[in-house]
Amino acid sequence: MYISNRERFITFEGIDGCGKSTQAKILIEKLNDNDIATCFVREPGGTPVSEEIRTILLENRDERMCNRTEALLMTGSRAQLTKDVIIPALEKGQWVIADRYTDSTIAYQGGGRGLDIEWLLQLNDFATYGTIPDLTIIVDIDPEEAIRRTNDSAPDRIESAGIGFQEKIRKQYKELIKLFPDRCMSIDGSSSPDVINRSVWDEIKNRKFIYEK
Amino acid sequence: MYISNRERFITFEGIDGCGKSTQAKILIEKLNDNDIATCFVREPGGTPVSEEIRTILLENRDERMCNRTEALLMTGSRAQLTKDVIIPALEKGQWVIADRYTDSTIAYQGGGRGLDIEWLLQLNDFATYGTIPDLTIIVDIDPEEAIRRTNDSAPDRIESAGIGFQEKIRKQYKELIKLFPDRCMSIDGSSSPDVINRSVWDEIKNRKFIYEK
Repeated sequence: MYISNRERFITFEGIDGCGKSTQAKILIEKLNDNDIATCFVREPGGTPVSEEIRTILLENRDERMCNRTEALLMTGSRAQLTKDVIIPALEKGQWVIADRYTDSTIAYQGGGRGLDIEWLLQLNDFATYGTIPDLTIIVDIDPEEAIRRTNDSAPDRIESAGIGFQEKIRKQYKELIKLFPDRCMSIDGSSSPDVINRSVWDEIKNRKFIYEK
Repeated sequence: MYISNRERFITFEGIDGCGKSTQAKILIEKLNDNDIATCFVREPGGTPVSEEIRTILLENRDERMCNRTEALLMTGSRAQLTKDVIIPALEKGQWVIADRYTDSTIAYQGGGRGLDIEWLLQLNDFATYGTIPDLTIIVDIDPEEAIRRTNDSAPDRIESAGIGFQEKIRKQYKELIKLFPDRCMSIDGSSSPDVINRSVWDEIKNRKFIYEK
C-alpha cells in the first residue's frame, strides 16, 4: 500500500489518439486501490457550462471557427471547471487527474493554430486562477500511429484537422518540456499501456508524491 | 442628402433598457435614407458560432457562471463576429453599427463583475484583431428608469443581476468616457428617442463622418 501526504494535480497531455485517456484511467484505479481519493476531469467540459462550451468547440459545422474564438472558448471552459471542480477537489485533499489542461491550449491553439505562445500563457493564467499542475505527463506518439489507432471513430472538428496539424502539436509539446522541465515529462506512447503506466507510477514515487506505508 | 467619404464603425453602449438598440435602428434608417450602406451587429451573437455562445451566456441555469468564463465567452463571441462580419463589412466600405461591443466587456465584466480593467482591455484587443470603433455613443440613464422601461419582458441571466449591478456598470461607462474621451461620448437617455437621435446625427456631422452633397 502507498499513502499520500497531500493533494496532487496531475495532467495527461498528448496528440489525439496517444493513449492519455487510458493512462489517466489506469492511474485513478491504482490510486483508488491505495485508498487515495481522486477526482477525474476531462477537457473541454466537466461542468454544465463547460459541457455546453465543449459542444460548440467540437461540433462540425459549415462556419469555420476562428482561432481566437477557439482559444477563448477553451479557456472559458477551463475557468469554470477550475473554479467549480478542480480547486474544490484539491481543497478537500483529493488528487485531481486531468485528461488535458493548460498545455493543450499551448500545443493546439499555439503550435497547431499559430497563436502567440506568450499570450496563451497569460490566458491560461487567467483561466486557471493561477492553478498549476504538480506533474504533467505528455504521452508522445507518432501522429500516423495515433491515427491508425483512432480511425474507427468519427473525428470531431479539431481531430479532423489532419496529420500536419498533429505534427505541429507534437512539436509544441516537445517545446513545452523545454519550457517547463520540472513539471512536464514525456513518456513513449508506442509502448504497451502497462509499460507506460509503470513509468507513470515510478515517476510519482520518485517525486515522493506517494510513499510506502 | 448626406454622403460619406469612407466606412465608419459606430458602437452604441449603455445599461440594459437605456434605449441604445432603438437608437442604433434609427441611425441605420437615416444612413440608408442617404444611400449609405450599413451593416448592423448586436452582441453577443451575429454568426452561427457567436449565437451559440450567446445562448450559453444569457441562459438562466442553476450553475453560477464564473466571471472569468463570462469574460472569455463574451470576447470569444466578439472574435468570431469581428473576423467574419465587422472587418469584411468595413473592407467593403460599409458603415458598421453595433449594439454593444468592447466597452460592454469593460462595463459589465469589469465594473459589474470586478475583473481587472487592464486585463480586459488586452482581452478586447485580442478579440477584435485591434479593431477600434470610430465613435462610441453611451446612452446614459438612471438604472431605476431603465428597469421601469424593461420590466414587462423576462430578464436574461445578466439583466437579472439587479439594480446595484446596473449602478456599477453605469459608473464604469462614465470612467470609459474619461479613459477614451476622443472616441466615447455620453448622451442623456432620459430624452425622447427623437431628441437623442438628433444629438447622434449632429455628432456624426460635427465629426465630418458625413457631409452635405
